[in-house]
Amino acid sequence: MSPGSDHDSTADRFADDPAFAVHEGGKLSVVPTRSIDSIADLALTYTPGVARVSSAIAAEPELARRFTWAHRVVAVVSDGSAVLGLGNIGPAASLPVMEGKACLFAEFAELSAVPIVLSTHDVDEIVAAVEAIAPSFGGINLEDISAPRCFEIEARLRASLDIPVMHDDQHGTAIVVLAALRNAAKVVGRPLGDLRVVVAGAGAAGVACTKILLEAGVGDIAVADSQGILHAGREGLTPVKQWLVDNTNRAQFAGTMTDALAGADVYLGLSGGTVPEAAIATMAPGCIVFSLANPIPEVDPEMAARYAAVVATGRSDLPNQINNVLAFPGVFRGAIDAGAHSITEAMKLAAATAIADVVGEEVRADYVVPSPLDRRVATAVAEAVAACARQEGVTP
Amino acid sequence: MSPGSDHDSTADRFADDPAFAVHEGGKLSVVPTRSIDSIADLALTYTPGVARVSSAIAAEPELARRFTWAHRVVAVVSDGSAVLGLGNIGPAASLPVMEGKACLFAEFAELSAVPIVLSTHDVDEIVAAVEAIAPSFGGINLEDISAPRCFEIEARLRASLDIPVMHDDQHGTAIVVLAALRNAAKVVGRPLGDLRVVVAGAGAAGVACTKILLEAGVGDIAVADSQGILHAGREGLTPVKQWLVDNTNRAQFAGTMTDALAGADVYLGLSGGTVPEAAIATMAPGCIVFSLANPIPEVDPEMAARYAAVVATGRSDLPNQINNVLAFPGVFRGAIDAGAHSITEAMKLAAATAIADVVGEEVRADYVVPSPLDRRVATAVAEAVAACARQEGVTP
Repeated sequence: MSPGSDHDSTADRFADDPAFAVHEGGKLSVVPTRSIDSIADLALTYTPGVARVSSAIAAEPELARRFTWAHRVVAVVSDGSAVLGLGNIGPAASLPVMEGKACLFAEFAELSAVPIVLSTHDVDEIVAAVEAIAPSFGGINLEDISAPRCFEIEARLRASLDIPVMHDDQHGTAIVVLAALRNAAKVVGRPLGDLRVVVAGAGAAGVACTKILLEAGVGDIAVADSQGILHAGREGLTPVKQWLVDNTNRAQFAGTMTDALAGADVYLGLSGGTVPEAAIATMAPGCIVFSLANPIPEVDPEMAARYAAVVATGRSDLPNQINNVLAFPGVFRGAIDAGAHSITEAMKLAAATAIADVVGEEVRADYVVPSPLDRRVATAVAEAVAACARQEGVTP
Repeated sequence: MSPGSDHDSTADRFADDPAFAVHEGGKLSVVPTRSIDSIADLALTYTPGVARVSSAIAAEPELARRFTWAHRVVAVVSDGSAVLGLGNIGPAASLPVMEGKACLFAEFAELSAVPIVLSTHDVDEIVAAVEAIAPSFGGINLEDISAPRCFEIEARLRASLDIPVMHDDQHGTAIVVLAALRNAAKVVGRPLGDLRVVVAGAGAAGVACTKILLEAGVGDIAVADSQGILHAGREGLTPVKQWLVDNTNRAQFAGTMTDALAGADVYLGLSGGTVPEAAIATMAPGCIVFSLANPIPEVDPEMAARYAAVVATGRSDLPNQINNVLAFPGVFRGAIDAGAHSITEAMKLAAATAIADVVGEEVRADYVVPSPLDRRVATAVAEAVAACARQEGVTP
């Protein structure tokens, strides 16, 4: 009865890649918190004893927080439409990513998390399904859902549910990017308000990063999609891109992303592709390059280092890894600990500051964010987010 | 950051009931199968290593069975509309029951199970939600959904999904009742085909028990709902009750349930309420009484013993406990082990025989079913169900 044993191990084409060994049989299990060793145990865990607990909760719904696991379980929900750099690979193939996310919730925040991969890409159906299953969970982490559907799905679920909902590809990334930029700005001795930023990519991460950087007071931002920098002359834009037009690009620059880099202080790559050295060479002295495409950054990190004062990537084998795991475990833990019914903009800003502050006075060009394994981070983020939630009045 | 610690323990009105202590903080956790101790672990469990596993599954979907946990996770799905004897207490209050069920899946079948409690009672919405989340799971255990909606929900999900779906209140109960009746018939030396049975209750359990007893060859069955025995003269019946009229009650007896007991060989109580001694006294000599209402059986067990050769109840403090835990862990384990895309009638019959056979030659009046803690049962049921699935051709 052992899981994952039904394959032919005599000629295993996956034997050479340790990633497959780690995934053999799947990466999660649901386990009881107490064992059942006697009829008495059975009669307390299940019928008839459980009926007294259910009756108590039926009479006083707030007892569910004490006597069920729902308040400490996060659903990691995806339709498999925008998985890592792989695109729309569907629910089954996205499951290893969602299981991995659940492992990180357990490892860093002592939260349980359950992968929920969906058989539909339809916005109404996704919203209805998540609303239907929501009483089972204490939070909803949306994951790897393609833009622009991800914006509507998150907005509708935030409006209809009374538990924290966060699309991590947007806000997890945005929180860590802001944390890294706060510290990078310290390294180069510039206030955020002075910086001119070019964001490459107007998908989930690009939109959320732009919004949080504006909220944090960054001076000016130009955002590029595949057609170039978003400006007032562009037509047929989605509502989200129109919002970007209205709130970014003060000079209404209308050229390409690489043209926009001339004199820019910060490049934030969230798009994939390749940025030529000639474009990076035009950036302002002491510039900052965050090139987050994985596994191949848009800007070659060695080349970037010849021009930039601070370089960050998504890669685990280089310094300054921008990894969402610095944000989402602590954000959900803090929101749940505080009993928050939503995650506000202020809570995200507080999370970014908490991450940056873990680095603190040790900040230097190759240390603008903590290691993804730094156990201090989730605790610091959770405390900051919970405190902010109480100030925001989103707690009971 | 410890779960369930946010209550006032200095004046705890739940301290005297150990059922509440067992439920403190909830009864389940999701845990990673491997820990993350290094950047290398992180890069295999999550990005970038996970991308290679996801890509492989996208190319060959059958690899999901080997490299994800989905094939060994059962969703325990309820809308909280018919919870134990408590009725429609809603999703949050039903959660302790679903968590308990998940504990039993882990304890007896080494399967993971996730409680999914729903915010809707609408049949179309429930079917749509379960269909949407189905790629996350290897099986769907429907639980505590009221009749007649439970029949349509199960039928539609069985038709649309390619994983095992079973409403346990129907079929888990039916399987264990049939197992017990097989052995009780042995004790009284009667073939099943000779027995005349009265089923009290035409809800989820009553319907499923009646169907499986007919499939097993029981001679005649009269089924009672709150209006009396179902017969051809009744009008305005649901499709399920009409099916019962067409397939039971050979004599088309039209009286009350207690009237029908005169000369009957078996009483199967699934309805609650109280059956008077005078009615039990009219049953045939050497009769069998299964009185399964919990915690108070319809027929007082001491009184029943004065008339019946075999008495069974749902109570854990009496012999012959009819407990679904004898069936559902092994049924799902066997179906999943075989890769079965559904649970057929033959698989349920095989499960009942396997449960009865664990008792084997030791059968006696106070031992017609194994103890709920007998670890041989789930293994025997799983093997029988898996073998039957292969014979039935419902495996890949």
